[in-house]
Amino acid sequence: MSLPPEFHEIARRVNNWGRWGDDDERGTLNLIDDKVVRAAAGEVRTGRRVGLALPLRQDGVQTGIIPGRVNPLRTMTQINQEVFGPGGVAVSDDTVTMGLQAATHWDALAHVSHSGRIYNGRPAGSITAHGGAAHGGIERVGHLVSRGVLLDVARAKGVDRLPAGHPVTPEDLDEAAAFGRVEPGTGDIVLVRTGQAGIYLAGDRDGYGFPSPGLSVRTPEWFHARSVAAVANDTLAFEIVPPEIENLWLPVHALHLVEMGLIQGQNWDLEALSGVCADEGRYGFLLCATPEPFTGATGAPVAPVAVF
Amino acid sequence: MSLPPEFHEIARRVNNWGRWGDDDERGTLNLIDDKVVRAAAGEVRTGRRVGLALPLRQDGVQTGIIPGRVNPLRTMTQINQEVFGPGGVAVSDDTVTMGLQAATHWDALAHVSHSGRIYNGRPAGSITAHGGAAHGGIERVGHLVSRGVLLDVARAKGVDRLPAGHPVTPEDLDEAAAFGRVEPGTGDIVLVRTGQAGIYLAGDRDGYGFPSPGLSVRTPEWFHARSVAAVANDTLAFEIVPPEIENLWLPVHALHLVEMGLIQGQNWDLEALSGVCADEGRYGFLLCATPEPFTGATGAPVAPVAVF
Amino acid sequence: MSLPPEFHEIARRVNNWGRWGDDDERGTLNLIDDKVVRAAAGEVRTGRRVGLALPLRQDGVQTGIIPGRVNPLRTMTQINQEVFGPGGVAVSDDTVTMGLQAATHWDALAHVSHSGRIYNGRPAGSITAHGGAAHGGIERVGHLVSRGVLLDVARAKGVDRLPAGHPVTPEDLDEAAAFGRVEPGTGDIVLVRTGQAGIYLAGDRDGYGFPSPGLSVRTPEWFHARSVAAVANDTLAFEIVPPEIENLWLPVHALHLVEMGLIQGQNWDLEALSGVCADEGRYGFLLCATPEPFTGATGAPVAPVAVF
Amino acid sequence: MSLPPEFHEIARRVNNWGRWGDDDERGTLNLIDDKVVRAAAGEVRTGRRVGLALPLRQDGVQTGIIPGRVNPLRTMTQINQEVFGPGGVAVSDDTVTMGLQAATHWDALAHVSHSGRIYNGRPAGSITAHGGAAHGGIERVGHLVSRGVLLDVARAKGVDRLPAGHPVTPEDLDEAAAFGRVEPGTGDIVLVRTGQAGIYLAGDRDGYGFPSPGLSVRTPEWFHARSVAAVANDTLAFEIVPPEIENLWLPVHALHLVEMGLIQGQNWDLEALSGVCADEGRYGFLLCATPEPFTGATGAPVAPVAVF
Repeated sequence: MSLPPEFHEIARRVNNWGRWGDDDERGTLNLIDDKVVRAAAGEVRTGRRVGLALPLRQDGVQTGIIPGRVNPLRTMTQINQEVFGPGGVAVSDDTVTMGLQAATHWDALAHVSHSGRIYNGRPAGSITAHGGAAHGGIERVGHLVSRGVLLDVARAKGVDRLPAGHPVTPEDLDEAAAFGRVEPGTGDIVLVRTGQAGIYLAGDRDGYGFPSPGLSVRTPEWFHARSVAAVANDTLAFEIVPPEIENLWLPVHALHLVEMGLIQGQNWDLEALSGVCADEGRYGFLLCATPEPFTGATGAPVAPVAVF
Repeated sequence: MSLPPEFHEIARRVNNWGRWGDDDERGTLNLIDDKVVRAAAGEVRTGRRVGLALPLRQDGVQTGIIPGRVNPLRTMTQINQEVFGPGGVAVSDDTVTMGLQAATHWDALAHVSHSGRIYNGRPAGSITAHGGAAHGGIERVGHLVSRGVLLDVARAKGVDRLPAGHPVTPEDLDEAAAFGRVEPGTGDIVLVRTGQAGIYLAGDRDGYGFPSPGLSVRTPEWFHARSVAAVANDTLAFEIVPPEIENLWLPVHALHLVEMGLIQGQNWDLEALSGVCADEGRYGFLLCATPEPFTGATGAPVAPVAVF
Repeated sequence: MSLPPEFHEIARRVNNWGRWGDDDERGTLNLIDDKVVRAAAGEVRTGRRVGLALPLRQDGVQTGIIPGRVNPLRTMTQINQEVFGPGGVAVSDDTVTMGLQAATHWDALAHVSHSGRIYNGRPAGSITAHGGAAHGGIERVGHLVSRGVLLDVARAKGVDRLPAGHPVTPEDLDEAAAFGRVEPGTGDIVLVRTGQAGIYLAGDRDGYGFPSPGLSVRTPEWFHARSVAAVANDTLAFEIVPPEIENLWLPVHALHLVEMGLIQGQNWDLEALSGVCADEGRYGFLLCATPEPFTGATGAPVAPVAVF
Repeated sequence: MSLPPEFHEIARRVNNWGRWGDDDERGTLNLIDDKVVRAAAGEVRTGRRVGLALPLRQDGVQTGIIPGRVNPLRTMTQINQEVFGPGGVAVSDDTVTMGLQAATHWDALAHVSHSGRIYNGRPAGSITAHGGAAHGGIERVGHLVSRGVLLDVARAKGVDRLPAGHPVTPEDLDEAAAFGRVEPGTGDIVLVRTGQAGIYLAGDRDGYGFPSPGLSVRTPEWFHARSVAAVANDTLAFEIVPPEIENLWLPVHALHLVEMGLIQGQNWDLEALSGVCADEGRYGFLLCATPEPFTGATGAPVAPVAVF
């Protein structure tokens, strides 16, 4: 069984292999140049900030469905230890074990492969147990600051959150852009709000994961046409599951990461941001969103901040 | 044995307990208000960006001296796994175990205690194995974006790095500020470059840790006088070790974290930044530096980015 | 609120503090002397062996109810890595993160405390984040080989497993001993079979933990009277939960570990053993059951083997 | 570059593929039958016991040379936590992260491969990040109790330990067997003492690993001829490193694990055992040595006990 023809047709239209050279490791992040960043800084008018990361804790977003992607287990290695003798300054220290995607995170380009290839045509076999991703690892991001744009699909439709199983379509994105009077463009980081994270924030971890709304297989072309640099949303799986095309699982992952070289973010908390955008009356802002630079990692936590 | 009188004298002069209310958990980060952030965004002129995080890898900055503070061990939990059947999209995933301070990181206010107290007079006993830091945990930071100021002490003195054992004094900071024609002020995040991280970057992990230059016990008053919000540098221990006052170990930690409520950063890579500041001819910039929000943690990794 | 009088009355009757000296760390394991072991070896007649450990895997017995007691997450750090060059011998290696009691395990004496004390009157405060259990850690066991005795309570009653919520009483133990024509005595390791592990082995992890049968608060006196060295069973919580005496949670833990200095085992797989005992027509055997010697640990995995 | 002809010649002579069926996963452990175990139990005369496991702690035997094989990091997840309310029974619990071979351990048959094959001709590719070793994992051992035989090469030569770089030859093994008046035979677990672990026990971790004595490439044939079930010693690398035949690294691993299907143990503490054997005047004993049954693991800790 192989990927269906529909996939290959879309892939051909959005493919970016070689666009930034055969050695490129950063894909659409190349679209963020100094000029884009200067303009992004120009979005700062009030100085208001909104953090977009979910807390990292043992009752995190993972429920055990994905083997090995364990929620953060943080433990103390020292508690008020008087390291240099009694009566002195005391130290507390801690350690963590976690799945690198058991968090508000970015997928690295190496996170998925198809037909034996990752982004830019590198062999999937370049990912090994020993070294991780020799190519397309999350450390290749380096830094990530640009204009952020919230496409608040749920609010545009006047609901707290999209129904479970709703595929977010290009038409939904157009509607949200019009609602926010914002035009996603070159180098932007687009945040797509479904409202799904509200379920997790209300304490229902199991209900958050599945069923869930998610991006339609038709959206990568929409992002491609607008030269978007990266896309994140507020769901566990990012895209709609089960898939819209039979036997084509994770097509959005494959199109974004493998074909376009576009990193995608999951489990972002866009609830407070939604309120602030509505309050400020604008859906563009400066976004700081650099992932932790784990060498060879196929994803990494990020603590994004929107600045208005 | 208790802390010497000199410590208590300085402590009295810099103490911020109650300054932002008895319930405050954020200390000097309160000094960063919307106005400060607006001004910080105004520092962006060219759009140039510099990442300040060291890569997270198993040959990280820790050498085993601090028990439990282990370098990141990242392992693959899936490699090109065809989760939904053969011939389909394949997934790679990974997990990590690491000391939360085995990285470019921020110390949380709860990281040290003295005389049974942490910042704002909370009992040190509020840190437990079960829950970590009930108060002063790193997740209290929420978001951290402000003006960054590089005090390039090494470059101001015309050296690649300060000699091992050199305590960075208020006079050194003045010199570096004058050299950079920059005035650290309210809400700024001050980065103090000693050049020590160059040793690590050159591959000498053991040489990086000790001996090392570090901040003098006299610097907290300097930062206090300027209403600085946070301070980071490019060393393992942050302050000078062994200490300048006999039997007073980690006084800068205790003054910053416990007395002032000022978070401090360690293992920051300021080498590239030093070159860019010199090249741009300015030592102020927008700094995005939000730590990963581990609930109850006494410290956390950060992937800071300076934007010019 | 403190422990009820009933608890203190039983505690007085079974207390072993000072019995083997004020410095003793091994409690009732002192009852296993060379003579006991010689006799235990004499139980070997056919040479048949039965392993009693559940497999260590991510879908282990823990379900997340006990924070931090995570099931084993085993990951590969090398897969067929040709360490010394291409075409040579290739190495695979792995690493694990796990709760030390997320397994077929022994509780160490330090696992519980009450009224500020652990076994032999040591202060509970001798357990620290830095060093773990300074006293009563699992490494104090050293080695553990003795006669094992299966009290097959379920089979004696003619059921596959005891009903959920059934407290195993001294009368049940008498019945099982009579059924097996075996007399638990000095230095024996008593294995109490409820049949509950059959639920886990059948794939129902959630059903295994709670509700469950478990030992009654009246059994520690029964074990004490017979000079038993250690007791293990095939349940998650070991004792009956919720408890038989109001507001007295974990009384069996407190009586065994704190008062008697008797280590107790949980999550043992006694299903195959039950069949072999019935088949061999005898309920005594040589038992090898040394826990992994984690220094300062409050429990550790064990891979017990019964030899007939 | 491929393995030299000398290797293939020895391999042909010791190969056991198919000997116990095409589906066999236990190799030479098949040689331990009930009769062997009965005889092993007959070795118990005094009831004296000796534990052979090194303590599991953060300053364990690994020094960082083997990436990912980290020493045990044990941390408390609860310390005297009054889980069911104040004044009640309090619980302490812990968790660990460790390389599965960073301990007194057994290599699983899947630990090494050569020419794309593991034991019994299975493809090396059957080891994956997702599931570990589908064949030849350590859980296949099930249980391991047999006669243990100490070949005390160091004591036979009248030295505390063999010189660094000394390859232990078949002649050395003959000499030690004669010295101990013991004849290794079918189903035995042979323990080869070099004395090297004494360096670790004396506190010199770095000195323990390399340089070290180790088994010669000529010993697998010696073990094969005697139908030995398993072999363990008191060194980090098991065999002599650098190797005796140019460009043939880890030949003993490849012969034992891949060709013979014979598991091998490393980092065993044979120091106390050496004294007891000399004292008892006999070098055979009952040995309990079941590894922890991690599913799919390429090795696992073991807490072996010799019973005299």
